[in-house]
Amino acid sequence: MSDEATTATPSPAPPAPTGPPPKVTNRGRSAAPAASANSETSDIPEYEYFIQPGPRGYPPLTEYLDIWDVDMMKRPDESNKIAHHTVLYHSDYLIVRRAQEFQVKIIFNRAYKPAEDKFALEFVIGSSPQFSKGTYVPVFPTRERQTTWEGRITNTSDNVVTMAITPAANCIVGKYQMYVAVVTPYGIRRTRKESSRDMYILFNPWAAEDAVFLDDETERQECVMTEMGIIYHGAYDDIAERDWNYGQFNYGILDACLYIMDRAEMPITNRGDPIKVVRVASAMLNSRDDEGVLVGNWSGDYTYGVAPTSWTGSTDILLTYNSSKMPVCYAQCWVYAAVFNTFLRCLGIPSRVVTNYYSAHDNDGNLKTDIILDENGRIDRNRTRDSIWNYHCWNECYMSRPDLPPGFGGWQVVDATPQETSDGMYRCGPASVQAIKHGQICFPFDAAFVFAEINSDVVFHSRRKDGTMEPVRVNRTHVGRLVLTKSPGDVTRRDITDQYKFAEGSTEERTVLEKAEEYGCKREKSSPPAADVDVVLPNLEISVGDNFELNVEFINKSDERRTVDAYISGSVVYYTGVASTEFLFLTPRVAIDPKTNKKEVASVESKNYMKRLVEQANLHFIVTGKIRETGQIITAMKVVTLRNPKLIVEVSGKGKVSEEMIANVEFTNPFSFNLENVYIRMEGPGMMEPKSRYYRLITGGSSLTWTEYFTPQRAGTSRVIATLDCPALRQVHGQASVTISP
Amino acid sequence: MSDEATTATPSPAPPAPTGPPPKVTNRGRSAAPAASANSETSDIPEYEYFIQPGPRGYPPLTEYLDIWDVDMMKRPDESNKIAHHTVLYHSDYLIVRRAQEFQVKIIFNRAYKPAEDKFALEFVIGSSPQFSKGTYVPVFPTRERQTTWEGRITNTSDNVVTMAITPAANCIVGKYQMYVAVVTPYGIRRTRKESSRDMYILFNPWAAEDAVFLDDETERQECVMTEMGIIYHGAYDDIAERDWNYGQFNYGILDACLYIMDRAEMPITNRGDPIKVVRVASAMLNSRDDEGVLVGNWSGDYTYGVAPTSWTGSTDILLTYNSSKMPVCYAQCWVYAAVFNTFLRCLGIPSRVVTNYYSAHDNDGNLKTDIILDENGRIDRNRTRDSIWNYHCWNECYMSRPDLPPGFGGWQVVDATPQETSDGMYRCGPASVQAIKHGQICFPFDAAFVFAEINSDVVFHSRRKDGTMEPVRVNRTHVGRLVLTKSPGDVTRRDITDQYKFAEGSTEERTVLEKAEEYGCKREKSSPPAADVDVVLPNLEISVGDNFELNVEFINKSDERRTVDAYISGSVVYYTGVASTEFLFLTPRVAIDPKTNKKEVASVESKNYMKRLVEQANLHFIVTGKIRETGQIITAMKVVTLRNPKLIVEVSGKGKVSEEMIANVEFTNPFSFNLENVYIRMEGPGMMEPKSRYYRLITGGSSLTWTEYFTPQRAGTSRVIATLDCPALRQVHGQASVTISP
Repeated sequence: MSDEATTATPSPAPPAPTGPPPKVTNRGRSAAPAASANSETSDIPEYEYFIQPGPRGYPPLTEYLDIWDVDMMKRPDESNKIAHHTVLYHSDYLIVRRAQEFQVKIIFNRAYKPAEDKFALEFVIGSSPQFSKGTYVPVFPTRERQTTWEGRITNTSDNVVTMAITPAANCIVGKYQMYVAVVTPYGIRRTRKESSRDMYILFNPWAAEDAVFLDDETERQECVMTEMGIIYHGAYDDIAERDWNYGQFNYGILDACLYIMDRAEMPITNRGDPIKVVRVASAMLNSRDDEGVLVGNWSGDYTYGVAPTSWTGSTDILLTYNSSKMPVCYAQCWVYAAVFNTFLRCLGIPSRVVTNYYSAHDNDGNLKTDIILDENGRIDRNRTRDSIWNYHCWNECYMSRPDLPPGFGGWQVVDATPQETSDGMYRCGPASVQAIKHGQICFPFDAAFVFAEINSDVVFHSRRKDGTMEPVRVNRTHVGRLVLTKSPGDVTRRDITDQYKFAEGSTEERTVLEKAEEYGCKREKSSPPAADVDVVLPNLEISVGDNFELNVEFINKSDERRTVDAYISGSVVYYTGVASTEFLFLTPRVAIDPKTNKKEVASVESKNYMKRLVEQANLHFIVTGKIRETGQIITAMKVVTLRNPKLIVEVSGKGKVSEEMIANVEFTNPFSFNLENVYIRMEGPGMMEPKSRYYRLITGGSSLTWTEYFTPQRAGTSRVIATLDCPALRQVHGQASVTISP
Repeated sequence: MSDEATTATPSPAPPAPTGPPPKVTNRGRSAAPAASANSETSDIPEYEYFIQPGPRGYPPLTEYLDIWDVDMMKRPDESNKIAHHTVLYHSDYLIVRRAQEFQVKIIFNRAYKPAEDKFALEFVIGSSPQFSKGTYVPVFPTRERQTTWEGRITNTSDNVVTMAITPAANCIVGKYQMYVAVVTPYGIRRTRKESSRDMYILFNPWAAEDAVFLDDETERQECVMTEMGIIYHGAYDDIAERDWNYGQFNYGILDACLYIMDRAEMPITNRGDPIKVVRVASAMLNSRDDEGVLVGNWSGDYTYGVAPTSWTGSTDILLTYNSSKMPVCYAQCWVYAAVFNTFLRCLGIPSRVVTNYYSAHDNDGNLKTDIILDENGRIDRNRTRDSIWNYHCWNECYMSRPDLPPGFGGWQVVDATPQETSDGMYRCGPASVQAIKHGQICFPFDAAFVFAEINSDVVFHSRRKDGTMEPVRVNRTHVGRLVLTKSPGDVTRRDITDQYKFAEGSTEERTVLEKAEEYGCKREKSSPPAADVDVVLPNLEISVGDNFELNVEFINKSDERRTVDAYISGSVVYYTGVASTEFLFLTPRVAIDPKTNKKEVASVESKNYMKRLVEQANLHFIVTGKIRETGQIITAMKVVTLRNPKLIVEVSGKGKVSEEMIANVEFTNPFSFNLENVYIRMEGPGMMEPKSRYYRLITGGSSLTWTEYFTPQRAGTSRVIATLDCPALRQVHGQASVTISP
């Protein structure tokens, strides 16, 4: 290689600089970084002159109208908080809702003269306020000078002016600073920044122009105002309940919710759009990708945090995240859904937690859950990788969908539980429930994923020796068996399955599934002939520690004798449907006469499953078999959720606001073995902050009583709820209803 | 607080464990972690018995048919690579495409007897192969036993069997292991895992059943097979070109592309779907969120990496990322687009780089770019936050869209440049170009964002003293002025603007914009009356370092005299439209007689802008003004891209494969000042690997010659391209075409 540079000569390249590269700046890429933190504020100058300074500098503006004081009228007993349904928020600031008028009093140094005095209220949010971005909004009292926010003077007495402001129906939701600006011929004179004049503006389900308008007061009371909820779990034919204190009005929760959006670096200008807000939140509620609120853990080892089954409410979780700025350990689906619910209700977006029983966990975007059997019809646990969650909890939130064609507004599914979405991101929704029901899964966001959770087929494959498989049985009704939520204004269940799907076997259902297939949902085409022998597993209600008998019934519908080589298998499973250990395995050969039934009895002793129980003490029974005469495969599956011992919670006292009361929590260890490292937690909205106690040891058969004194802060009916949790025994609950008179 | 536990007594809670929490496992959550790394493989047992071992253990399977050898027929001159258009890949392995037959030879220990010998080829990908997931695919030679992949014997001579395999049209794309399995009565006997039998399966634009089928050979040759590309930049009325070596066939590039998907932990089972593949890649090509391939930097300080303007091709970038596993510094939009293009063409997805001139940078999901003027009509640079990129590059890739209603397949926009998408993730697309053109922006993914980039209005606001603003001028034609890509099989430009939008002012255009508004795109409603005076800026072609005159023409269309208080401002800007420093500012008062024109001349001296030049040497002129008589506002804007000096590249030699040739790069520093820390890079597909040289100093007026010897590896026409880059002078190019005869 030669080189004849006339003057310039090459040199060895300089060594690469050491040390980490500098943080890449926004310089050159955008004029100003997009404001993405509500916590950052800007300073608006106290004086803004229109003119150049004269020889003696600027003229003093002091002889013009001067502001002595501003009264935000933020006391709970004042009209603002009452009219805006924000009385319950424990906050030192004014909290109002969009598209609804609120009032503030301005006290001037002298009587206000509408003819000559000019002033405006200025509302500012974020670090780079701009009129055209809706982050700086001046509001004028005069009709001629209206902006997107309306202003009018409702009362003038001497030097006190009461001004009414109506924020735009689509304005940014968050914490604003407020200034009063007096406009003089020489320039603007403002009040100094004063945190007591900060205020929050929330979504408004009561306002028809707001995107979250929900035209039903009962629903609004439930889905926005109710703090104490019920989350359903267990099995579709043996439903269990869990109380949860959403605590959306507790001190610090609103700030914690705004911090979540700040932590996501969500542009302030997007925060008036509920679609974008809930989408960001569905990603931020879990810690995957983005250091979000909750760390998921299904392993059973919760040494480094709180067991998901142990939480009683959202308050602890959100306050911890806001103060530590670190993800909180640990969560499973109902914890994600419950905390998400707090976030949504706190900001004023109507929301509820729903539970889907037998929820398919789709991880390759098809509509099939594959169960692999060997050639004899016995389940092959190594090759069966798909699982069906006994239940899965997600949220519905209520809003219009201007980004979609008409008809897809209303309830929207959002899900913060990190699942392997085909989109590679750990977030899900908002997906229109209407779109899901009608198979219109081409619309954002993630409708196809939710569709699969409730519509997947269970396909039993028979695996040949050479590794190929053939589907031998397809169960199209197992998945998405039941969708539940709490009834509004009541503690009963509400079956909303019909909002997600048409009746099984109806023509509409078939049309919907075909529609979904047009959009790429792959279904199992083959429909192997149904066997002429049925196998049925009974409903069982069994307490942890019981011995019991499992009656497996074989029904021969044919006119000939049938012989079944059956496999009866029982395992302890996680609620995710993942098998832990098998404790029962029988291989009876069952001969059934024509048109008759035959029972096969399997007796289960507690000693066989007790030591192996995991988590929520679910037993999963699966019966498979091959009919000798026909070679057909028969299958049956059932999840049995063992009943746990209860916590007894008793409340005594006058039941009056600000008068001390007593809560007793009693528990007896029903087992012969000891319970170790036991946590008991208790709380009650409006009555008791979250409390917890730790017991190193509760010996077999022994009992305990925990007495806690508390003082209700407000009237109404509420509940004190408690949980007991330890590695050997999870999700033990108890609760007591309380009515507090004023 | 009291406590009467009969036996159990509370203890102080144990201290929280110290140290970081353990990595959260998948245990309990899913039966097996979803396989998400092509680099991970599993071991298929050599022997798989159907029977229990007898007294003397298992019977030997050796007396059955035995495999001596397998010939993958992977030489470039063999039928497989020629028929599958994969000859150009520098790889030691067989590379074929989906939905197209390829052949392998199996050499047995004796003649193959179809009647009694049973064997299968097994194709395996990832760590948990499963037939039902398409990650384990046995292929049989017999018609009765076909799976999703077809197999047939095309030739049998003595003990050598040639078998033809046709992978399914939707099979997973990536690197497979291949086994030959012989099935005996006692069990299966396999070949050992042998890396020389690994093979790649790619997307197939030549196969009608493949989702990326592109029915045009010229387009396929361009968008899949062409390595040397042209990327357009500069200004819509003064277009500049940049050569780029995509190098998709270079050694190691295919593995680097698969690593990108592994790094994204993309489930293997999703990798047959081009929609999911390109979506994941659009997120992974940039380092935001996910430690992806390229770090964006627009700041002008590239000390810690390579200046975006300095790259000549993708090869260096992808190989560095694959070896270092760290994001590569630095990129701007055309680098993202170019490397993305390499990724797509390498995997067999037809793709091209497109350039959109005057690309709006939407960061709050509306269709407005706001420019703020003061009450006198002078631009307020502090309050003007939005910017319009002089140009922006993204990719189009070609595929069907089964996830959308019919009509939206074909070209899809994907964009890897990290922008503040309203969806909070740094990725964009695939968005159907058809959907964008017709305003159907409700369909995934990110169609609304791309729609805004080409359809935004420029709104000039006049800001009143009290902070409110009123729109005084709306320019609806400035943004998305021109969309260009390279013509297939040619080095000329192709204007594809009409594929993105209907003609300005046409009725279709209006309908489309209304449709987009239905889906929530907010546009500027007001249309202030057009002024009766126009202001026009001339086209200018100016070289870096020149003095020149700017003639600003004022056209009075009215019947009266008009006086304009004008502001003529010139700034150095980044190509993102962000202003760096203002070097020219004039405030002439221009009086124009009725129905006449008047020129205002501003003379610009190089010394005023030279020292301030940034990046791509763009000058931005904006003229605003207020007509005294009418108070109307007039505006004009223009970007002038200064012409850089050229690199002279000359190639000499015989121009025959494997015969040495010479490339000369010459450069003269045209300036009076010195150039310091200069890098020159050169490469040529099929001829020269990327080379670079460093010159500490090139004194003013001096020149250099760099002579490089190289040896072409294949015949055909190609180019040697070179760039020169230093902080004081960026993006100096040169290139020479070469024709190599066999």
